[in-house]
Parts: sequence; C-alpha cells; structure tokens
Amino acid sequence: MKELKEYSIEELESYCEQIREKIIQTVSHNGGHLSSNIGAVELIVAMHYVFDVKKDPFIFDVSHQAYTHKLLTDRWERFDTLRELDGISGYTRPDESMYDYFVAGHSSTSISLAVGAAKAIALKNEQTKRLPVALIGDGSLSAGMVYEALNELGDRRYPVVIILNDNKMSISKPIGAISKFLSSAMAGTFYQKIKKTTEQILQYLPESATYMAKKFEESFKLITPGILFEELGIDYIGPIDGHDIESLIRAMQSARSLKKPVIIHTQTLKGKGYEMAEGYYEKWHGVGPFDVNSGEALKQGASKNATTMYSEALMALAKDHNDVVGVTAAMPSGTGLSPLIQAYPERFWDVAIAEQHAVTSMCAMAKEGFKPYISIYSTFLQRAYDQVIHDACIMNLNVVFAIDRAGIVGEDGETHQGAFDIAYLSAIPNMTLMAPRDELSMHEAIRYAYTHQGPLAIRYPRGSFLPCSDVPSLPFVCGKAEVLKEGNSTVLLIGYGNGVGKACAVSQMMQDVGVDVGIVDLRFAKPLDENLLLELSKQYTQWYVISESAKIGGVASLLSAFKEKYTLHVKIKSFEYDDMFIRHGATHLVEERLGITARQISSSILKVFLSK
Amino acid sequence: MKELKEYSIEELESYCEQIREKIIQTVSHNGGHLSSNIGAVELIVAMHYVFDVKKDPFIFDVSHQAYTHKLLTDRWERFDTLRELDGISGYTRPDESMYDYFVAGHSSTSISLAVGAAKAIALKNEQTKRLPVALIGDGSLSAGMVYEALNELGDRRYPVVIILNDNKMSISKPIGAISKFLSSAMAGTFYQKIKKTTEQILQYLPESATYMAKKFEESFKLITPGILFEELGIDYIGPIDGHDIESLIRAMQSARSLKKPVIIHTQTLKGKGYEMAEGYYEKWHGVGPFDVNSGEALKQGASKNATTMYSEALMALAKDHNDVVGVTAAMPSGTGLSPLIQAYPERFWDVAIAEQHAVTSMCAMAKEGFKPYISIYSTFLQRAYDQVIHDACIMNLNVVFAIDRAGIVGEDGETHQGAFDIAYLSAIPNMTLMAPRDELSMHEAIRYAYTHQGPLAIRYPRGSFLPCSDVPSLPFVCGKAEVLKEGNSTVLLIGYGNGVGKACAVSQMMQDVGVDVGIVDLRFAKPLDENLLLELSKQYTQWYVISESAKIGGVASLLSAFKEKYTLHVKIKSFEYDDMFIRHGATHLVEERLGITARQISSSILKVFLSK
Repeated sequence: MKELKEYSIEELESYCEQIREKIIQTVSHNGGHLSSNIGAVELIVAMHYVFDVKKDPFIFDVSHQAYTHKLLTDRWERFDTLRELDGISGYTRPDESMYDYFVAGHSSTSISLAVGAAKAIALKNEQTKRLPVALIGDGSLSAGMVYEALNELGDRRYPVVIILNDNKMSISKPIGAISKFLSSAMAGTFYQKIKKTTEQILQYLPESATYMAKKFEESFKLITPGILFEELGIDYIGPIDGHDIESLIRAMQSARSLKKPVIIHTQTLKGKGYEMAEGYYEKWHGVGPFDVNSGEALKQGASKNATTMYSEALMALAKDHNDVVGVTAAMPSGTGLSPLIQAYPERFWDVAIAEQHAVTSMCAMAKEGFKPYISIYSTFLQRAYDQVIHDACIMNLNVVFAIDRAGIVGEDGETHQGAFDIAYLSAIPNMTLMAPRDELSMHEAIRYAYTHQGPLAIRYPRGSFLPCSDVPSLPFVCGKAEVLKEGNSTVLLIGYGNGVGKACAVSQMMQDVGVDVGIVDLRFAKPLDENLLLELSKQYTQWYVISESAKIGGVASLLSAFKEKYTLHVKIKSFEYDDMFIRHGATHLVEERLGITARQISSSILKVFLSK
Repeated sequence: MKELKEYSIEELESYCEQIREKIIQTVSHNGGHLSSNIGAVELIVAMHYVFDVKKDPFIFDVSHQAYTHKLLTDRWERFDTLRELDGISGYTRPDESMYDYFVAGHSSTSISLAVGAAKAIALKNEQTKRLPVALIGDGSLSAGMVYEALNELGDRRYPVVIILNDNKMSISKPIGAISKFLSSAMAGTFYQKIKKTTEQILQYLPESATYMAKKFEESFKLITPGILFEELGIDYIGPIDGHDIESLIRAMQSARSLKKPVIIHTQTLKGKGYEMAEGYYEKWHGVGPFDVNSGEALKQGASKNATTMYSEALMALAKDHNDVVGVTAAMPSGTGLSPLIQAYPERFWDVAIAEQHAVTSMCAMAKEGFKPYISIYSTFLQRAYDQVIHDACIMNLNVVFAIDRAGIVGEDGETHQGAFDIAYLSAIPNMTLMAPRDELSMHEAIRYAYTHQGPLAIRYPRGSFLPCSDVPSLPFVCGKAEVLKEGNSTVLLIGYGNGVGKACAVSQMMQDVGVDVGIVDLRFAKPLDENLLLELSKQYTQWYVISESAKIGGVASLLSAFKEKYTLHVKIKSFEYDDMFIRHGATHLVEERLGITARQISSSILKVFLSK
C-alpha cells in the first residue's frame, strides 16, 4: 500500500471522504463523538502527511476528535469495536496503540504536554528529528491550564506546533471574550491587505524618514487573533480553511520549518460532511446510536435519567426562590442546566470550560446571599478541587455541588468514571455529602439543599437510577439515614445513592432463596447517621456497603472509621470499586467484570452467609 | 478622628509612612510577608480613599499584601498579635473583621470572586451603590484561573475594578511571557505620545479621507500591556506609579466612573521603604523575626529543615543521574529547588504559579523517559489534583511528587496546613504514598523514588523533623514498614513521616512510667506492609496512629480498612487531625490545642492502658 506521504491532493481528499464515511457509520452504530471528529478529518490527515507519527509526539487535546488518527494508525479494521468493552477507546490510549502519545479525556492539557515533550526533546538533543504537534479546539482555550502552558512556552520558546481547530463552538455554544476575539479572524485578513499597502507606501518615503517609519511600524500592529498569541511569544499562522487540505499542508510545512513555537489557526465546520450535524452545536457532539438517514436516535423511550430529574427539580426550586443561581462549565445540556439558562439567563450561566472559575465565582455569590447550584461532572470537579477547599469550605459558604456522572459512566471510560468524589470531598471540613436514590428523593435532595447551611455535595449517576424500593422518599434531614426494609437475618445492605437500587435488587434475590435482609438508604455519607447505625448494629452484624464509588476513601471506609470509633462488633464488606482505573464499555458489562452486579453481590453475600 | 477621605495628599503620604513603619516593626517581631505588604501601602490607602470598604467588596488576591487594609480597618491596636495563636491572621478572614470580604491564601482567585460579586450586585440591583475592587499582583497572573475569569468578565462586561500591582517579581523572579509583556509598559507610554500626534495629523486630513482613516485607526492599535486586556474586553488604565498616591487616586476615581471592567496597571517596588528589602526578590517575601537595623534573622542555628534535606538529597541524585529533572511552581526557595535550578538550568524549572501546567508538563517528560521530581506544597498540589489523576496516574508514569509543608505549617494558618494530601492522593489508583522520618531516610526516600515504577508521593513537614529513633534508616523497599522498637506491652505506636519522631517521644514518656511499647515506622501509607502488620497484630492489639494528616481519609483510616479486610482483632486509634480547618499560630501551640502533642498523646494512651 502507498504511504500517505505519496498521495496526491486529490487522493488525500478522497481518503478524507472515506474516513468521514467510516466515522459516521461507526458512530451511528456505537455512539460516540460525532461532530468534533468529522470536523477534524482534514486537519488530522494533513498532520499525518506533514509530520511523522512514528517520531513526533502527536498530542490530541481532550482527544475526542482523534478518530481519524486512530483510523490512520492501524485501527481501521477494529474500529467497529469503538467504545465497546475491550474494543477501541473513544480517546487516545498509549496501551491501545504505540501511536497514541497520551491518554486525554479532560480538556486543555495538550499545550502543557507539548511543552514537556519539547523540554525532553531538547535534553535528548533530538530537535532536528522530532517536533511536538498539538491539536486543540477553540473550546479548550477557555480553561486556565492553556495559559499556564503558553506563559512558559512563549517565554522559553521551545519548538512546538499548535494546531488550533476553531469551529466556533467547542462542545456547546462559544462563550467568552477569547471566543469573540478569535472570530475577528476573517476581518484580520482584510486588514492584512491594508497593511501590505501601507508598507509599500512606506518604501517610497525619503531615506531620512526611515527611522521614524520603523519606529512607527514597531509601535503598531494589526489586530488579528494572532496578536494575542504573538504578544505572548508564539508565532501565528492563519486563519486557514480547515477543510482545504492543500492549504493545511502548506501551513503545517511552514510551521514545521520555523523551529519556534507556532500556532496555526484553522477554521472548521463542526459536523462537516454530515448534513444533519453541520453547524449544530451541542446535539451532535456526543451521541448514542442513530439512524444515518434520518438522524434519529435509535434508543428511544429509555426511562428518565437522573440529569433530567435534577434539571426539573432545580427548575421547580428556581421558580419559587429568586436567590437560587447556578453555573455549568460548558456542559449545559450534559448537566441539565440548559432549560434554566434559557428560563433565567440572569441567574444561570455557562462559563465555558473553566471549572475553577465556576466554583470560585459562585462562592462569591454565596457570600452575597445567593444559593448557587454548581452543576458539574464528578471527574471535572477534580479541576476545581483547590477552589472547593479554599473558597467554598474554608469560607463555609452555602454552596451546592450537584455532581452528575458519579459512578461508572460506561463508554467514555477511565477518564470519565466518577469514582473519586466521595474520597476527595469527604476529607474536607465543613463539607456535607448526600445522595438521592430515585426521582422523588432527587426532588427532596434539591429542596433540602436549599435550606442547608454550609457546602453540600449531592451525587447521582449518569443515566437513570436503578429501580428502587417502593417506600416513598421522606424529606431529608441532615445526617439522617432511612431504613427501607427490616430483615430477620443479621445481614444489612447499606446503599448510597444509586447503590440503594442495587441493594433492593440484591435483597430481592436473597429473599428468593429465603434470606431476609435489612436495607438502609444511607442518604448522607457525611455526616453519618450514628444513632441509627448504632441501633442497627445490635441486630445486624454483617454490613454490606453498596455505592458507586472507589473503595479507598469510599462509603465503607467512612463506616469503618465509625465502627472503630465506637468499637462496634460488625463486619463491614464493601462492594465499591477496587483500586484500579475502570475501562470503557457498556456499564452493565463493566460492572460484571468488576464483580459488582446485583447478581454477583447477592452470590457473594450468600456464600458468606451459608458458610456460617 | 478625621475620616481617611478628608485627608490631604500630604496627610495621606505621611499616613503611609506610619503604616509602613508599623508593618516593618511588627513583622520584624512576628515574622510575616514583608516586602509584598510594604510595597502595597499606597495602593491600599488609595483604595480605601476612593472606594467604600463598608459597601464595595475589597478582594485581595492571595491576601499576603493586605496588612495595610487590616491596619486601616480597626486592627491597628491588635496588630502586634499578627500570626500568633488567636491573634490577627496573616491573610484576610471574614470572621476576623467584617471588612475582610473573603479568605484568601492561594493565588489568583480574586478576579473570579470579583465576577461573582458583580453578578450578585447586578441581581440585587445595587450597581449604583457597590463595585467590586480586586487587588492582584503580577505574579498571580500566571495561574490559569485568572484567564478563566477574564474570559467571562471580558465577554459579559460586569463593572469591576482590577488593580494590578506589578512589582515585576511576585514571590520569586518574574517568569513567563506575560511578565515580559507587562514590562513593556514604560515603552508603552512613549508610543502613547506618538499615537496622539498621529491622531492630530489625521484631524487635518480632507473630509473624504475620514472613512479610510477611521478604518485604518481601528485596524491598528498600540502595543502596550493594555492590548492584551483590551482585546479580551477589559479597559486598561496605566501604567501608574504605584507609590504616587495622587496618581493612584485619580486613576481609581476614573476607573470607578467607567461602569465597565477596568484594569489599572500600577508599578510598585517590592519592599519599598525598607532599604534592605527593596528589590530583593524572594528573600524578603515571607520572613521570620529579624533585626530591623541589620536585617539579620533573629532565630539562627535552628536544626536543618526537611526542605534543605530534600534539596541536598535531590542534588546528590541529580549529580549521578542525567535523567533526573524537576519543577517548582514559583517556590524555588520554599521547595529547595533553587540550588538545582542554578546547577542544572536545563533540567530544573520554575514555571511560575502554574501548578496544573507544572504537573502535566512533567508527565510528558516522564513519558519521554525522564524522572521528574515535582516539588510542591501539600495545599498547592490541590490545584493540580485533576492533572495528578489524569496525566500522572491514569498514564501510570514515573513521576515523583515531593510534597513539602505536609502537616501543620504554623503561622500561615488554615489555607496552608497540609492536612489533606493523604486523603486525596490515596484514592487514586497506581499512586504510591511514602514518607521519610529524618535526614537519612529522606536521602533513602529520594533514592528509592528514582527506581520506583509509577507515580509516587513523598511527604515531609515544614521545618525540621522531630528528633527520632537512633535506629539508622534502611533503604526503602516498596510497601515495607520498619519496626523501630519492640515492646513488651500490647501497645503499638504506628508513626508515619514526622509522626515517627512524635511516636518516639511518646514511647519515651510511656517508658518513663514503665510501659514498654512497640514502634513502627509505616514508611508507606499505600501500599501498606500487610505481612508485617498481620504479624504485629498477634502481640499488639492496641494500635495508635501518629501522622500529621486529617483523620478522614488519613493513615488510620487506611489501616482500619486493612483491619476490616483481614478481620483483625486490634483496636485502632488515630491521633491525626479532627475534621476542622486548623487555625494559625506557632505549630506547638496549635498542636497543643488539638490535643496531639507527644505529652497529650502519651497521657491519652496511658488513660486507656491503665483503665484496663
């Protein structure tokens, strides 16, 4: 087979069409990131044409645009396993292919990685052979990390090529001053022409005026998007049509030759090549399986998901209380905040990918007497951990963290599994941790949160809650758990959040073989309902903890510390996640592999129970 | 007494001198942040003159420059208790004074807070009465959070006044492209004049040329520091001499009237007014007590601190191994990295206040085969928590986190107490946690780290280690603890890090009353030395855990989970920190209040022991 570098422009163009078709077909079956990927086909083909993936670090920011890269590097045949258990990951993964430089699933790390790679290349004296190339979307520019990296890069000026994929939308709508600034790009080209004319005129000035003219020139610069980067010490090329493969190749070749930090500003159409997706912001970013012809989603009628429940509960609350405000960091639809932003644009904000700013700015609103609901995914809150400690908890402010995607999220894999929030939040003084188990308790939780004094985190899963006890949820009282079912054995199932539904399923399975267990919905992981638990310890001496969280620092570990404090004679076993990163795949398959389906938990408990 | 607003310029100037004198005297006795505070006297006096501290949110970034603010707001008399237990905090604290808007001890939160406050002010319809004013140093500009906030501020354009205190040094040397960019400020004023002339010429052009001239004007702008901000939608005033109170007042008054986001760029001399400190970068940033006349530190000859031990150990390692590299985020002296940056400037970097970038860029170096030592304080690593998980641990790279200031740091108080690192790091898969107990084991730890595969965190205290067992430290073996002393009772003291020294002191006190206890240096909090602990559980049934860390998620909680796993019949008691933020004061006094001095621990154990 011919090497990519030997292709003619026409051949490259037709190859791009094949790749695009392959992506659309695969994503329509498996779900995945559609529009970001089909918008970046030419960019990535040009990268592979100009740079050498065997030597140059290819760094994909967030890497949800890297499907083309996967298809170009030995994964064409396996690509139909995209996002499946043991299949191709939706993100880059070095253990999947030697051509994947880094894992990336969170935004805005690429320039830091490129700087680190450049330092290494310099130390190894490989500058003539290797050059880091980063591909980053305009949406990733809002996260602060990018500026931390540019600040060093522009100063130390390592050779690095940054390809900016400006599709003017990132995941959701474009937000922020930087986005506006970039959009002046086309205007920029107009002024480039004016400048050239000016220069020509200056040429004809008398010699004596040359010095002044030069001074004048130096003191003025064109206001193009380039200026922002150039003033930070990064050379700028652009704007380039990101679907014109010939221009892309030319720009990349010239960037490669510069031996300096360069940014190539390319403009693409998100969703390019799939008419239904072209120009549609959030809808076609990450999708489930769909019909290619109609664009209709294939899995209709699934039960209501927790995000929608949160959204509806918050909407009801916001209607009654003017002081309820909220924020999302670029996930208005993912976190259910869209309808609130629409209904109350002066009280709910999308601040772009900027988790640190989201948290701290809402802390100031809490200080001013408002009640902010910070709507965020479990893993993305990691980006604002210091702000949670420093600005919310030391200040002991009335801030609510509504933590979506807590637990296994399935196909997005290890960068997105919400395993750690209980561990990293429970250690923070003043923090309260709670979780609803179903729709009714979600409404109760959101209402309770409004009255709670101090920072509070509420976690809930991706997708719908597991079916649960019929016991209707009571209003929340701080630190109070709820007994859902008494049993006549010594076995107590302690569920937290979506773990309650699983506990109910386990209970049913055990009932079927004649073992009658108790079920508690813990409701609060911090503070624990010590009185109730002490009471329960009299009858129940085997506590089985079911929660969608990491074992270390998880719910069972909090219960163990409680047990130690009171020297209780109970045995605690955790069915949380073992100490490992959890791979991608359908959630039920992933859980099965971890041994934590209701069936597996029930067998495991019965084994202990029957051996006694 | 006359209100500040009624002072003449001369009176204000002389007041500034009094304030400066008061700060120098107090800091010379109590220690504290000297040069940042005496550099900002005029800025803060002008703020108080122009804005209304009773209504306008005064937001001090990091707040280590806010002494003048404290002196102006009812704390003059109590100021001699600065940084003492129950005394005035070195940072702003709303529970110390109603004039302190927010706690701030970590960098770069101020603009986010100002944005949040502005949103609240808008919602409350108080725009005509209140205006957020943020004071931020140029050093704080390197942290990404600032750009996240500017991105929203420049877009939504809330009225906010940002006073940029540009002393060209932040804590240590100025680093990065932004710093270079700001330093072109004085050049800027020169070009301002040229521009004015140009405008005057344009006036005299024939009418027909006006349109073209306007277009031309719009397309060019002066390259001043302002452009960076103006292009982001923030008005720019400056540069202003930050010690000229009259100019400052004028600039602030005009900023106040604009009803837009404005940045006032002021230039100050760090250390202004204390000759010995003027212009000296890091030395006079945070100091202990000193002699005002000679500038000499008063507490000489203290024993070697852990930071120096780390620095020397790393230097020895770096000498032998070319692949050892390292980074600090603006704390070259605080983390002991200065001598390494000096000796190996191509392998050790200060990347400015940019913890996220520091971690991720070093991860790329590890990917390239280097061995990075990321030298950072416990609380500042919180800023890079997501990067630790995402870039170091998912990638399972050979990265060392050298965590300084673990445990109580004393006078800097709750924003700086290193209490949470064990909790937030232990939950991350692939992470190994270890701690040295003294100088020899520090050297062993740094050497061991070099050979360790996967991410590894080493924690050690501020200041010197507590005196410890004479047992010489053996080389570290992953997951292996060390028995320092056998006892003939059932009591086992389990020390971790600096807790080992305390355990030795406790052991001695108990020996004095005839109780002979065992001592283990745990060495690894993760993974635990399960075999040894199982063995020890046969004789020792009372385990007392001594570690300088928060109880929740701390060392005892990891041991409790281990006990649960093996159903051990031991009683575990933790002498770690209770679930509260720990206030400032001398470390031994703070520990006494928490009930965790060696004397208190020994009494507490004896009480249990004797009651049996």
